[in-house]
Amino acid sequence: MERTYIVNAADGETVKIQGFVENLRDSKSMAFLVIKDITGRMQVTVEKESAPQLADVLTKITPDSVVSITGKVVANDYVKMGGRELLPTEIVLESVAEPLPINRKAIAATKKHPAVERSSIYQRIDYRWIDLRTDENQLLFQVQTYMVNAMRRFLLERDFMEIHTPKLIGAASESGSEVFEVKYFDRKAYLAQSPQFYKQMAMAAGFERIFEVGPVFRAEKSYTNKHTTEFTGFDLEFSYITSFRDVMKIEEDLLTDALAKVKEKYGDRIQELFGTEVVVPTTPFPVVKLRDLYDGLEKEFGYTVPESEKNDLTTDAERLSYEWVKKHYGHEFLFVTDYGPEKRAFYHMRDENGMPMGYDLIWRGTEITTGAQREHRYEILKKQAEEKGLGEDVKFYLDFFRYGCPPHGGFGLGIDRLTMLLLGVHIKEAMFIFRGPNRLNP
Amino acid sequence: MERTYIVNAADGETVKIQGFVENLRDSKSMAFLVIKDITGRMQVTVEKESAPQLADVLTKITPDSVVSITGKVVANDYVKMGGRELLPTEIVLESVAEPLPINRKAIAATKKHPAVERSSIYQRIDYRWIDLRTDENQLLFQVQTYMVNAMRRFLLERDFMEIHTPKLIGAASESGSEVFEVKYFDRKAYLAQSPQFYKQMAMAAGFERIFEVGPVFRAEKSYTNKHTTEFTGFDLEFSYITSFRDVMKIEEDLLTDALAKVKEKYGDRIQELFGTEVVVPTTPFPVVKLRDLYDGLEKEFGYTVPESEKNDLTTDAERLSYEWVKKHYGHEFLFVTDYGPEKRAFYHMRDENGMPMGYDLIWRGTEITTGAQREHRYEILKKQAEEKGLGEDVKFYLDFFRYGCPPHGGFGLGIDRLTMLLLGVHIKEAMFIFRGPNRLNP
Repeated sequence: MERTYIVNAADGETVKIQGFVENLRDSKSMAFLVIKDITGRMQVTVEKESAPQLADVLTKITPDSVVSITGKVVANDYVKMGGRELLPTEIVLESVAEPLPINRKAIAATKKHPAVERSSIYQRIDYRWIDLRTDENQLLFQVQTYMVNAMRRFLLERDFMEIHTPKLIGAASESGSEVFEVKYFDRKAYLAQSPQFYKQMAMAAGFERIFEVGPVFRAEKSYTNKHTTEFTGFDLEFSYITSFRDVMKIEEDLLTDALAKVKEKYGDRIQELFGTEVVVPTTPFPVVKLRDLYDGLEKEFGYTVPESEKNDLTTDAERLSYEWVKKHYGHEFLFVTDYGPEKRAFYHMRDENGMPMGYDLIWRGTEITTGAQREHRYEILKKQAEEKGLGEDVKFYLDFFRYGCPPHGGFGLGIDRLTMLLLGVHIKEAMFIFRGPNRLNP
Repeated sequence: MERTYIVNAADGETVKIQGFVENLRDSKSMAFLVIKDITGRMQVTVEKESAPQLADVLTKITPDSVVSITGKVVANDYVKMGGRELLPTEIVLESVAEPLPINRKAIAATKKHPAVERSSIYQRIDYRWIDLRTDENQLLFQVQTYMVNAMRRFLLERDFMEIHTPKLIGAASESGSEVFEVKYFDRKAYLAQSPQFYKQMAMAAGFERIFEVGPVFRAEKSYTNKHTTEFTGFDLEFSYITSFRDVMKIEEDLLTDALAKVKEKYGDRIQELFGTEVVVPTTPFPVVKLRDLYDGLEKEFGYTVPESEKNDLTTDAERLSYEWVKKHYGHEFLFVTDYGPEKRAFYHMRDENGMPMGYDLIWRGTEITTGAQREHRYEILKKQAEEKGLGEDVKFYLDFFRYGCPPHGGFGLGIDRLTMLLLGVHIKEAMFIFRGPNRLNP
């Protein structure tokens, strides 16, 4: 018999459902099971006298075991889960679960049992596959799938190619300090910190518009709620732009489109399970120069930093900028421009005053993107690399610009961080399995 | 002025086109440039007397330089490229190219010049961004983008989630010999050889249907036309299957759908540039047991192998199987089942006779997939791992099956290899940048 998704099991039908046993009450004459599949939950009610063939299997079922149950769906107004229950004729125990080593949710005290605390995030990651069985976590990855594919479709409809650039690279790019080293036969390789150089190689190849979704690796010993040593980057690059404002434009359109689609499909469910509203932004997004933002933060929140730090955004200013942009624009997003050249990568194009022609995008007080027009003129780019003390390691990259290269620009997003901000969770919750300096398992 | 794609530049319009200078002839009174962008080519004709402002820039333009040209499109029946040419009023040299270090195409001899040989694939990879500027290479990545996203859409429409599993892992999986080792702060990590274990973790998490598109790493010293140390895997896994035949079914439907879409959109262009026909297969694909295939190959092609090798497919048999399946079924695909258990991974489920319940899929004489139902029962899986001598390294994986796990199966494809077979090129041509034991650059 074909399986029926629980959400589709209708009164009066004989169906086979399959899922995890979420709850189990076994008494002398009756047994009640709650079965959960990816679409919902269903109560299975066994009247033992009328189903003696099930007695044996019922003694073996444990919480979180996986079962296939065939039976008839009947209406029952007293049952919460859709006002129906399944009266089984057959139960197959597909996989029996040992006692669970974590509590994925807190359980309130009852007359019989004291309250159960939820396991810590670290314990839950140890047994991530058990932790992921909650409605919240399954929704999170459904939403992430949907959001990223909305973004992908947006770009495909605009003639972007999707490429896959190498993660194993021959030279430690950008700066040697934060790169993982790989034993590559009898030499060393490194893990790409971003597809930046290869995205730009695609521009030199005349690909014109490309994006990539793939892992990026950061050998940073950061123990914050938003850093990780491996995450999934969403990077794009496109040619024949006239300014970095073209890059900002495509990014705001891309995010607005994706958030509108997510809200339409999952907005209510996100509100219900995460208590977070999906807000579809208006375009254009507000833009502020870094200096002006600091002036505003000082004036309105009394926030001051030494003059020497005003060429970059401090973490506190980043967070406060959310209050500022909400107050002035009723907006969640904020483009910040005019960062100091000493704080920006050598490959950002600079204007006639030496100001980098790029931006950061802040969402809900957290930076999600750095974008820029890139310097595509070989001699200038070489000079900017040398100013940052970069030599042999970027030579292979500088060569991309010696044989003709269109003007271009782009940006990168982290999809885990995007998910984190969308749903209001920590980064460790927003990825399939978190990776940090002390965390390589499972 | 907004840029116009060359394909859209119509007679009588004043437009700005942007692209690479593919060809350049400069005589006393006239200059002819061929400009190529991602959509096509256009001749730009300069009558020097009537456009003196262009004299200076014309002396600076070299082949493969990037230019923005504004002018009027006029019909000209003598011009090949769409019967039109551009009469420029302005030429901006965006990026000047040095003399090219490779010949990306062979050039036939002329009265004035001897023939030019095409650079070797190794030289071309050294300057891959120049090599990628050909129509063939740009089409290749457009086709790959389209094919992979057709596959992705097929799965999204069937409730699959797209996940991103870690590439940095704590234990050398499957077998220690072919895994890259990473220096991970003060300990070792490894690069995932496939998302296999984590795809299955998603099954234990109740995700039910997932796929992943991402890099996989193989520390193999293979120097063939189809191996590489890093490639892009397309992997899927789904739950509540009843047999590995469910896996074969979804794979043949997925590939048939993708090939039909590719043929519709790019079939003619592929024929034109690669001389290869895109053939949309019929379903179901032919299926043969490994033993029966060997019998057939012996009977019809006199191909024999020692009895001891008949539990796996030899490279010669793989290639010959294409002749066999064409002859018997008029088909390009062939499912081969019933491989010996000693040749299959420990996590393949086995039938009551110990035969692995999985398959390989051969396309045009090359293996593209291994698929199987997986063993989801902890005790049996543990025993099968131990039989293969696998212990501590797979312990974290075996734990996925201790707390309830649905029956499931899946397969993996390499999208570079798929592209290679679709277009009839070598693996080094089918990926953005090839990676091999001696190849980490650019």
